[in-house]
Amino acid sequence: MSKSIKRKSKQRASAFAPATVANVAVGFDIMGFALEGLGEVATVERIPLADQASPVIIGPIKGFPEIVTEPEKNTAGAGLLRLIQDQKLKFGFRVQLVKQIPVGSGLGGSSTSAVAALVAANALLDKSLSPHQILEYALIGEEVASGSRHADNVGPCLLGGLLFVRSFPRLSYAKIKTPSIVRVVILLPKLSIKTKEARQILKPEVPLSRVIEQTANLTGFILGCVSKDLQLIRESLRDAIIEPQRAALIPGFSRIQLAAMNAGALGCSISGSGPAMFALALDQKTAVKIQKQMRVACHAAGTPVYGSWISGISKRGAHLNP
Amino acid sequence: MSKSIKRKSKQRASAFAPATVANVAVGFDIMGFALEGLGEVATVERIPLADQASPVIIGPIKGFPEIVTEPEKNTAGAGLLRLIQDQKLKFGFRVQLVKQIPVGSGLGGSSTSAVAALVAANALLDKSLSPHQILEYALIGEEVASGSRHADNVGPCLLGGLLFVRSFPRLSYAKIKTPSIVRVVILLPKLSIKTKEARQILKPEVPLSRVIEQTANLTGFILGCVSKDLQLIRESLRDAIIEPQRAALIPGFSRIQLAAMNAGALGCSISGSGPAMFALALDQKTAVKIQKQMRVACHAAGTPVYGSWISGISKRGAHLNP
Repeated sequence: MSKSIKRKSKQRASAFAPATVANVAVGFDIMGFALEGLGEVATVERIPLADQASPVIIGPIKGFPEIVTEPEKNTAGAGLLRLIQDQKLKFGFRVQLVKQIPVGSGLGGSSTSAVAALVAANALLDKSLSPHQILEYALIGEEVASGSRHADNVGPCLLGGLLFVRSFPRLSYAKIKTPSIVRVVILLPKLSIKTKEARQILKPEVPLSRVIEQTANLTGFILGCVSKDLQLIRESLRDAIIEPQRAALIPGFSRIQLAAMNAGALGCSISGSGPAMFALALDQKTAVKIQKQMRVACHAAGTPVYGSWISGISKRGAHLNP
Repeated sequence: MSKSIKRKSKQRASAFAPATVANVAVGFDIMGFALEGLGEVATVERIPLADQASPVIIGPIKGFPEIVTEPEKNTAGAGLLRLIQDQKLKFGFRVQLVKQIPVGSGLGGSSTSAVAALVAANALLDKSLSPHQILEYALIGEEVASGSRHADNVGPCLLGGLLFVRSFPRLSYAKIKTPSIVRVVILLPKLSIKTKEARQILKPEVPLSRVIEQTANLTGFILGCVSKDLQLIRESLRDAIIEPQRAALIPGFSRIQLAAMNAGALGCSISGSGPAMFALALDQKTAVKIQKQMRVACHAAGTPVYGSWISGISKRGAHLNP
């Protein structure tokens, strides 16, 4: 994103925003990573402001046209509306979206809309926003979708990599280096889980012993990533708190997880609030094997597979298309 | 610790083990760091095995002679007894201890006995133990003292630095790099808190919102240390779970903590299960100011000060004396 003030304003821009895996087994609400390739494209045009109409028009949405297009209820629209208001823009935006992943899959499908639209819109502004500002506007969209202000999808979606992000007491984030060899396997069972519902089933209290176990897992995972200690990653990438409560939302979860681990995964858990699952692998060959075994186990549990992918962890996050 | 097999066995050795700050506000039961200078010296001699007597004799204990000297109940003795048994040694040990800090202070005073005695005893063995083995024996001593198998004191005491350590499902540990400029202020109010009692007051359940806050603090602190991001350390070194429950054990806690923060501390919390408190500072001058203000606040709260120290984080941990 250029920070220079443009002399001749751009009228149209297109941006890609990657799907993301939030929580990552050990970092509920505070961690996520971006995928390569899989995501969403937003094409945004400047439109004149009309007195009676909304300054933001959403649509068409390719891929999943059932998504709400009223701008204030749409994750892309909500942030743009606030942006127009805050920056006192003399123009509005028309947003077209091409989605590769369904909303409600646990792959940050509402964040991709918000982030892709904002990154594209940012290219049309006379004065560019900082990444931090884009994140704040994307969080407005995230709030519309999930009912809570969590940046564990929008953060890595915008900035890439494995990201620690917290939105309280202030929005702050830091990247965590990951071994570059790591491959990600994503399995998306054909189920729909709403983030709000997945949050509601969580017990409001956690046993202290589980907290100790989880903080040890979290620390071991971070230090394993930082020092490239794969054994430490393997023994740490386990969810002692959230997964045991949410696994029941995915029929066959334990079977699929076991299949991934037996096929050589470093770890396997729920992506975001599911139903997507992720597994980490150390090379492409193992990833292929894991993908196959996860698909087989999912089918065997009677749950159809919507799709599965093998990806890397995207270093760059959302970006303008040329 | 030399790993070579000694031809002529040493009969007597002396080792220093540093005091430690466990929990470190964000890592209850899984993290601790070693202090420079403050700690305990153990002098260990080989003694012949006598049929009727215990193979380990503890004493004299200088500094705090009230400590139990029955070897199986003493933190230094318990590990040595197991060592003699496991390794089928043909000799026993006499252990003299010189303690600088009282047991029950929250500075790992039982770990220093166990670790110093084991490091000295290790120098008298025909075949040296690995650090991992020493840690396992030290944990036996820790169990005698606290009733639970936690390595957050013995780990950094033996290995030095800021250490992540977990004892479940297996004993594992990893060092966390800290900015070398960091200075540690220790304030020890004249109170005695037993680890067992400090554990008993903890509620068995933690609100999920606190877990999220604490895991964010933990992650921010680790990443702040790794990337030398002092702002991140400052906003993260806060205990959302344990400190609010244990602060009442230290009359004037909030006042002392506030005094430390106002004097420029990066963070300030309870050391281990208290009553010692620690604060981190970025230079000696600030550390001196913090120390003074903490002492003043402690006195003002009506609690006498047993002692206070300024130290660095010890990189090397326990070591043989020349």
